[in-house]
Amino acid sequence: MSILITGVAGFIGSNIARCLVQAGHLVIGFDNLCRGKRSNLAGLIGHERFVLETVELSDGVVYREALARAHCHEPVTEVWHMAANSDISAGIADAGIDWRDTFMTTFNTLEIMKELKIPVLVFASSSAIYGDFKGARIREDMGPLLPISNYGAMKLASEAAISAASGSWLSRAFLYRFPNVIGVPATHGVIYDFIHRLRVNPAVLDVHGNGTQQKAYLHCDDLIDAMLFIRAKAPENFTYYNIGPLDMGVTVRFIAEEVAALVAPCAKINYGEDSRGWVGDVPKFAYSIDKLRALGWKPSLDSTAAVRRAIRDIAEQEMASCDKP
Amino acid sequence: MSILITGVAGFIGSNIARCLVQAGHLVIGFDNLCRGKRSNLAGLIGHERFVLETVELSDGVVYREALARAHCHEPVTEVWHMAANSDISAGIADAGIDWRDTFMTTFNTLEIMKELKIPVLVFASSSAIYGDFKGARIREDMGPLLPISNYGAMKLASEAAISAASGSWLSRAFLYRFPNVIGVPATHGVIYDFIHRLRVNPAVLDVHGNGTQQKAYLHCDDLIDAMLFIRAKAPENFTYYNIGPLDMGVTVRFIAEEVAALVAPCAKINYGEDSRGWVGDVPKFAYSIDKLRALGWKPSLDSTAAVRRAIRDIAEQEMASCDKP
Repeated sequence: MSILITGVAGFIGSNIARCLVQAGHLVIGFDNLCRGKRSNLAGLIGHERFVLETVELSDGVVYREALARAHCHEPVTEVWHMAANSDISAGIADAGIDWRDTFMTTFNTLEIMKELKIPVLVFASSSAIYGDFKGARIREDMGPLLPISNYGAMKLASEAAISAASGSWLSRAFLYRFPNVIGVPATHGVIYDFIHRLRVNPAVLDVHGNGTQQKAYLHCDDLIDAMLFIRAKAPENFTYYNIGPLDMGVTVRFIAEEVAALVAPCAKINYGEDSRGWVGDVPKFAYSIDKLRALGWKPSLDSTAAVRRAIRDIAEQEMASCDKP
Repeated sequence: MSILITGVAGFIGSNIARCLVQAGHLVIGFDNLCRGKRSNLAGLIGHERFVLETVELSDGVVYREALARAHCHEPVTEVWHMAANSDISAGIADAGIDWRDTFMTTFNTLEIMKELKIPVLVFASSSAIYGDFKGARIREDMGPLLPISNYGAMKLASEAAISAASGSWLSRAFLYRFPNVIGVPATHGVIYDFIHRLRVNPAVLDVHGNGTQQKAYLHCDDLIDAMLFIRAKAPENFTYYNIGPLDMGVTVRFIAEEVAALVAPCAKINYGEDSRGWVGDVPKFAYSIDKLRALGWKPSLDSTAAVRRAIRDIAEQEMASCDKP
């Protein structure tokens, strides 16, 4: 019996893999190693309960063949589908990226699970499915769902396909609507971006937007804790949860200042004029996790603490990667 | 200046084409003629303001080439995207059908419109995006959106893609969430199905489900009237409306009895036991059109009158098609 993790070499996939392997599960990891990296799987590659396969998940034929082979060798009982495009801005310029990497990977996952009779799907959805609620606290049952990025659109499209599958053949489905998740191994995101830019030029940090964009941030350790908690406790066969911190988040200005304080204390921070950092960005975002609280979970870090810890960890990661020959 | 209608040879597409041509527009009609029929376009083919092209819209390359050519000849200023799978049950058995015909046709439409800078999209969405609200009156801003059919899922996926496009390059988008629409030329649906089966065997009509499934039905003439009304009056650049009758609908039992009374008065009607006719069917469905009422529109026929008129028209259509040599 084994668990398939797609996107296993990515930021979240690699952390989940480590956690599930440590818990005693046999984990098959699929990744096209396009954005994900082998180096994210340090300590896992070579482990007796972990197998990595390089698979292009947007190619249904290739994916089916790889999963059928793995399933034949050791029955796969559930799939944690984490593979997706993680570069939201790239997906806004070219809708084909999220179509392929965010939606088609999900659609193919469902088709192959149906064929192989794999009954349980855990899906990395996103707060981006909600679009812009102008700062209202977003609960899971709110509408209308009008995503403003192709990333959000293709996550919503994926949820829709999973919902229909649950109405027919899929036994259990867990949709986890992630907030901004931070931690290491970081590959993108505002903290990563600020650290990089300040290391190139420690004198100046130019921030997109006026810095007032406020978002909730969850540390990856808390995210995974919540995912496992819901997987264990949620009573419904089809369920969906917002996952996030309890607070309303921190501003981009706070992050810029915290990063500068650690990495380049003398940097001058310049802000833009727009309240929206980029097309597809939601300027004010508040997230209700009342449903998850009611199930009995709470995060260990708030946005402020999560951001501070992530800044330290990502700065350390980047120093280490520079030190390498 | 011209308008593209996709799925032009289908039930709704053909009725819209007739209406727009009569209003003086130049209409380019694309259809793969898979479910749509040339015979639905009687009176349009050969008209100086109408062009039909057989195009496989799920094939992005073919579609792009055909639309670029038409656009070069006569600039296309808006697209009415009506093409979709219309056989919901088929889409439940094989998710690939709605993926290809309902979603990919939309995704390709958006990609090509972006490339050719066509600014306005009118989209045939569906009440099926809402899933099962257990009989609660469904407003446009309700959630969660959990479709139970692949048809509903791929309509929601399409809406999501359009929503993201509106957040970036698309100037205007109109999402019309259709109810059950009836009228001629009918190709599927409960009325069409009952008439067919009673003509094969006028003694017995076996009904899926216990006959209590209740749905609102709108006559196609009212639907098109509403679409044109919203197109003309809605103030927003991105807008979405439920379209339907004001009433709560009629039961399957009512339809079965009305069809039998007209087509086979001696038929014995047998009902099943399940309150759901088939997987993907929503047993009780109530639809709010308050938003459309507030804009100033109301339908001319209620569900009862629409069903009665459609039964007469479809029975006549089927008699006529049988009389043909």
